[in-house]
Amino acid sequence: MSKSKTYTIGIDVGGTKISAVLFDGEKVVMDYMLATPKDNLEHFLIMVKAVVDPLLERAREMKVVVNGVGAGIAGVFDASGKKMLFSPNIPTINNVFLGERIEKFIGMPVLIDNDAKCFVRAEALIGAGKNYKNVFGLIVGTGIGGGWWINGDVYNGSHRGASEVDAMIIDSASGLNLEQGYHKIMQNNPGKMSQEAIIGDPLAEQVYNEFGRQLGIALANISNLIDPEIFVLGGGAVASSDLFLSIAKKEMKEHINSSDAAKKIKIVKSKLGANAGAIGAALLCGKS
Amino acid sequence: MSKSKTYTIGIDVGGTKISAVLFDGEKVVMDYMLATPKDNLEHFLIMVKAVVDPLLERAREMKVVVNGVGAGIAGVFDASGKKMLFSPNIPTINNVFLGERIEKFIGMPVLIDNDAKCFVRAEALIGAGKNYKNVFGLIVGTGIGGGWWINGDVYNGSHRGASEVDAMIIDSASGLNLEQGYHKIMQNNPGKMSQEAIIGDPLAEQVYNEFGRQLGIALANISNLIDPEIFVLGGGAVASSDLFLSIAKKEMKEHINSSDAAKKIKIVKSKLGANAGAIGAALLCGKS
Repeated sequence: MSKSKTYTIGIDVGGTKISAVLFDGEKVVMDYMLATPKDNLEHFLIMVKAVVDPLLERAREMKVVVNGVGAGIAGVFDASGKKMLFSPNIPTINNVFLGERIEKFIGMPVLIDNDAKCFVRAEALIGAGKNYKNVFGLIVGTGIGGGWWINGDVYNGSHRGASEVDAMIIDSASGLNLEQGYHKIMQNNPGKMSQEAIIGDPLAEQVYNEFGRQLGIALANISNLIDPEIFVLGGGAVASSDLFLSIAKKEMKEHINSSDAAKKIKIVKSKLGANAGAIGAALLCGKS
Repeated sequence: MSKSKTYTIGIDVGGTKISAVLFDGEKVVMDYMLATPKDNLEHFLIMVKAVVDPLLERAREMKVVVNGVGAGIAGVFDASGKKMLFSPNIPTINNVFLGERIEKFIGMPVLIDNDAKCFVRAEALIGAGKNYKNVFGLIVGTGIGGGWWINGDVYNGSHRGASEVDAMIIDSASGLNLEQGYHKIMQNNPGKMSQEAIIGDPLAEQVYNEFGRQLGIALANISNLIDPEIFVLGGGAVASSDLFLSIAKKEMKEHINSSDAAKKIKIVKSKLGANAGAIGAALLCGKS
């Protein structure tokens, strides 16, 4: 008899789209995606259900049971991990006990977590960080997010305030943080900038050089505090990583204090690609 | 029958003095101090022995056995924790397997660690962080050092490169790090500046305001990454903390991303004072 699989659904709620996967514990069976409604909470819940329903339908066709739903969402949760304190993309979910609300709406058990923490969970368990114990995941897309995998779990901190790398101050005089610096460099349009850099626009290339330098400094600051074995980079920026990753590596190594750490630290790209966050959300249900 | 005590010796090697304590597991029985020689390794070893000898003599008088010696020293160790890669204060010990050398010279088992990691070990086990599980210790003296206590132990990172807060870049344009910023603000003389600020010199007060702001940003960056329950502040700067701590707290809270963390995080001063580092070094021997 073959080992029976456990099926779960993972949802990745982004600023522009809600994507979801039906996951069999090892691979994605089906994925689906819809636009993120931002006008009110009811529309948001309706759209989450609309993304999940086709996956449940597929599970029924396959005659398998879905054991639970995990959802990853950008934002800061309260210390209990149940209430969204601040969503940068969807203000209508602020101060909402989101897992509870989705759970009631779709009629299935739902676990929630920060999207970047879902990303690193997926990459550490079955992706680019699989053979490492100390993995820092960094998502660079519309915004910037971080998650840290250590000792077989995601690290949350004492008040669920850990890995908020976007808030790292990198210019103490102006108080500019990493995410603000990123938006400033990218002139608020990373997608446009990467297109222009890829077709060889010198100004856009300069922008990507500057981004690489900034990213390298952020990685060095993270390394000097928690000294991971490996950084896994995800999000939209991965597609353009040729434009900035070698500069980022060089800058990072220059600013890491321990020469042993500087020599041994690795930076790699996400292995699970666009579904990484949703897979990590699905893997929430595998816990305990 | 009363519980028998375990006696150990802890040494704190600083840039100007080597101090040591005879420690009975709960309190300091005797402390002693000599100047740090920097001309060569032999003089350094002779002076370490000269600091330890009076404490051993006292132990003999008390008819108690000293179980081991721990030493805390500022600097970056290699990934094994045995070789000093870079000492900011005593270049003559660079690339030396320091524990081994001291062990042979004084004829007793010796364990070594970074001085700020010794500081946080002491404060977390028997000092200001005693009732907390997640404690970040920050030493501000001649230089800046950090140590993180989590899950009942000091966190070292994957290559012993963790908690190197002095290297945190806080001005990405110039590449200025926290320690360089501190030296620049203090005009390379924290002691003189604090004296002048205490007697009310307006320029020195301004310097301490600026230092408070910088420190608050560093604390926020640390909190946004590892989200501790409490910061314990040690080193020479503690004596002048009235001049900068309230500004540092305000600045820190402004830049912490999680409102729950910002509300609940604590900053306190060292409870063990000038002997904290040496006590933490003595406590190294209590570890199995």
